[in-house]
Amino acid sequence: MRDVAIVAAGMTRFGELWDASLRDLFAEAATEALKNAKADHLDALFVGNMSAGQFVGQEHLGPLLADELGMAGVAAARVESACASGGVALRSAFIEVASGASDVVLAAGVEKMTDSTEVTEVLATASDQELEAYHGITFPGLYAMIARAHMERWGTTEEDLSWVSVKNHKHGALNPKAQFRSAVSLDDVMRSSPVAEPLRLLHCSPVSDGAAAVLVVPLADAKRYTDRPVRIAASGLATGPMALASRKDIAFLDAVEASARRAYKMAGHGPADINVAEVHDCFAIAEICAIEALGLVERGTGNAAARKGDTALGGRLPVNTSGGLKAKGHPVGATGIAQAIEIFEQLRGEAGARQVADARVGLTQNMGGSGASSVVHIFERV
Amino acid sequence: MRDVAIVAAGMTRFGELWDASLRDLFAEAATEALKNAKADHLDALFVGNMSAGQFVGQEHLGPLLADELGMAGVAAARVESACASGGVALRSAFIEVASGASDVVLAAGVEKMTDSTEVTEVLATASDQELEAYHGITFPGLYAMIARAHMERWGTTEEDLSWVSVKNHKHGALNPKAQFRSAVSLDDVMRSSPVAEPLRLLHCSPVSDGAAAVLVVPLADAKRYTDRPVRIAASGLATGPMALASRKDIAFLDAVEASARRAYKMAGHGPADINVAEVHDCFAIAEICAIEALGLVERGTGNAAARKGDTALGGRLPVNTSGGLKAKGHPVGATGIAQAIEIFEQLRGEAGARQVADARVGLTQNMGGSGASSVVHIFERV
Repeated sequence: MRDVAIVAAGMTRFGELWDASLRDLFAEAATEALKNAKADHLDALFVGNMSAGQFVGQEHLGPLLADELGMAGVAAARVESACASGGVALRSAFIEVASGASDVVLAAGVEKMTDSTEVTEVLATASDQELEAYHGITFPGLYAMIARAHMERWGTTEEDLSWVSVKNHKHGALNPKAQFRSAVSLDDVMRSSPVAEPLRLLHCSPVSDGAAAVLVVPLADAKRYTDRPVRIAASGLATGPMALASRKDIAFLDAVEASARRAYKMAGHGPADINVAEVHDCFAIAEICAIEALGLVERGTGNAAARKGDTALGGRLPVNTSGGLKAKGHPVGATGIAQAIEIFEQLRGEAGARQVADARVGLTQNMGGSGASSVVHIFERV
Repeated sequence: MRDVAIVAAGMTRFGELWDASLRDLFAEAATEALKNAKADHLDALFVGNMSAGQFVGQEHLGPLLADELGMAGVAAARVESACASGGVALRSAFIEVASGASDVVLAAGVEKMTDSTEVTEVLATASDQELEAYHGITFPGLYAMIARAHMERWGTTEEDLSWVSVKNHKHGALNPKAQFRSAVSLDDVMRSSPVAEPLRLLHCSPVSDGAAAVLVVPLADAKRYTDRPVRIAASGLATGPMALASRKDIAFLDAVEASARRAYKMAGHGPADINVAEVHDCFAIAEICAIEALGLVERGTGNAAARKGDTALGGRLPVNTSGGLKAKGHPVGATGIAQAIEIFEQLRGEAGARQVADARVGLTQNMGGSGASSVVHIFERV
């Protein structure tokens, strides 16, 4: 397999973007990435998208978006793994370039959620329909059960959950692309409306529109496009039991651990080598479970990480410097690519007020549903 | 890139399968493929599916179906390019194995259409929403316009279209897996109900349920699984303008030509080397346009191929020996894999009453929407 690098990125602001359609959002992000690399052609395009069919009545995004970009003809396809669709699109681009099949590949993610009046129902189609969705449970409910299990097992508190939100909003306030650029206090979070107890409104990521894109090329060609390429050292994809009821321990994310194990092995790195990480905090409890399954903290201690400041900017291992899904926003198909962009900027030293000093190795973790699919990428400064 | 082979296949019957759910269908096909190869593990699973979110309320098929197969943990994802989703799944498996990232990969396709009461509307989400679907046009209408254009340009007649259906039903009658195992006469087709003139009911593929799966491994490992592997000599994916209104000549399928050009180049074969082909006859006119764009006949002469018997079993170049989408059925996400299975069986000499004598090189062509995406694979007997 050839060494692979990201050489450019483009991203819309995330938020309730009433004036932009799905194709507008994609075109803005993709055009920016191509312009930043001064690239005038693509060999392939992979689009991560969860549910444009249900959200806006449009499937078949590969050719639609290639055409929108003025590149009808290019090999293009959509990939989907619910909220991990963006991460899977990046993996597809990585394998495509690593294989030698293509030399210039755009990995993009896009979701237009705010046009739908049934967002919660559509998102629920990422759970197990027969064992979960049919019975009326939605994602806040599934993650509330995970939170309850973590509380029972490890003594996690509502305050622990809330510190994750406080941290991520503090980071998001520094990110010009974030949906919420406002700090929130512990009290704000603890007093926000209950959604699915113990989860409150400010423990939940929002409904968002947005798109993100990165240009992926062989590392050997990277200097043609930028003087600061970022190597994709590894891509690990894994699944786990779909329904919560099928899992041994719902407070632990098996698929995240398996995807991380594959990525660490491919990269020749371990958790201790990671300087900055973006993880999938669709709900505050998800960040706690993710950093445990990634091995970034000891099992059962993820609850203390935000409270103690370990995962804040300036802490031992800054997590979700972008603001995470919580504050940056979570246009589901775009999230995995947006995570990669945050790490790309961190490793290039371009993260501005969010910059982690001397970040050399970064990690992204993007998951689908209640964690039944997970993709981990590891990136290195070249 | 490593050489890649298919070593086993599994497929459900295609039809209105009221007793089987999406996951049942997938499990039947996938289990059969694994059993035929005596394979007890997978490194990765790619599932082609167009619209399970809209048809049956289930996205996130990667982990769901890995779990259903008893293989929770495996790297798995869904790929989508409307009715070309199966072909894109096969391409994903091909690249995955060719890259060296995985050694044992299942490429599957599945669609459960008959549970939906809005099949035509869901399928229309594969067209350009803003330029086509919003205005009420559906796929029979789009292909009717393509047929009209071909008639204007090349003198194609309703009888020419009808001979395609007669041929494919004749082939389908020999296929135990086909939805329609009944021959139809020219008169039957010409007198069937108008759907979107000039297209009549018997010019249209049906609404179907079904699944298909193939096991893809490095050619160097293939003999561990079977004594008759079939090499995937090439995989070509391309797109073209999404909306008919954006195309220079709607009677010609640019994306099909581009995908074929890529595949022929990769395989080192030309159209003259092909002994048997499965092409995407979602409507009779589509087969005529496809064989022209693939270079299997001269441009403008596809209309005569079925009438003259050239593309029938026993003819110069048998096309759609399986019965094609018309008679075998068209569970959209499964179609691209089912096409590959027909060629796999032909090249192994296992096609029974449909066998093409001494078939050495075969081709599949699978497309999405009104031809905005197309995937061509070329296969060789080893």
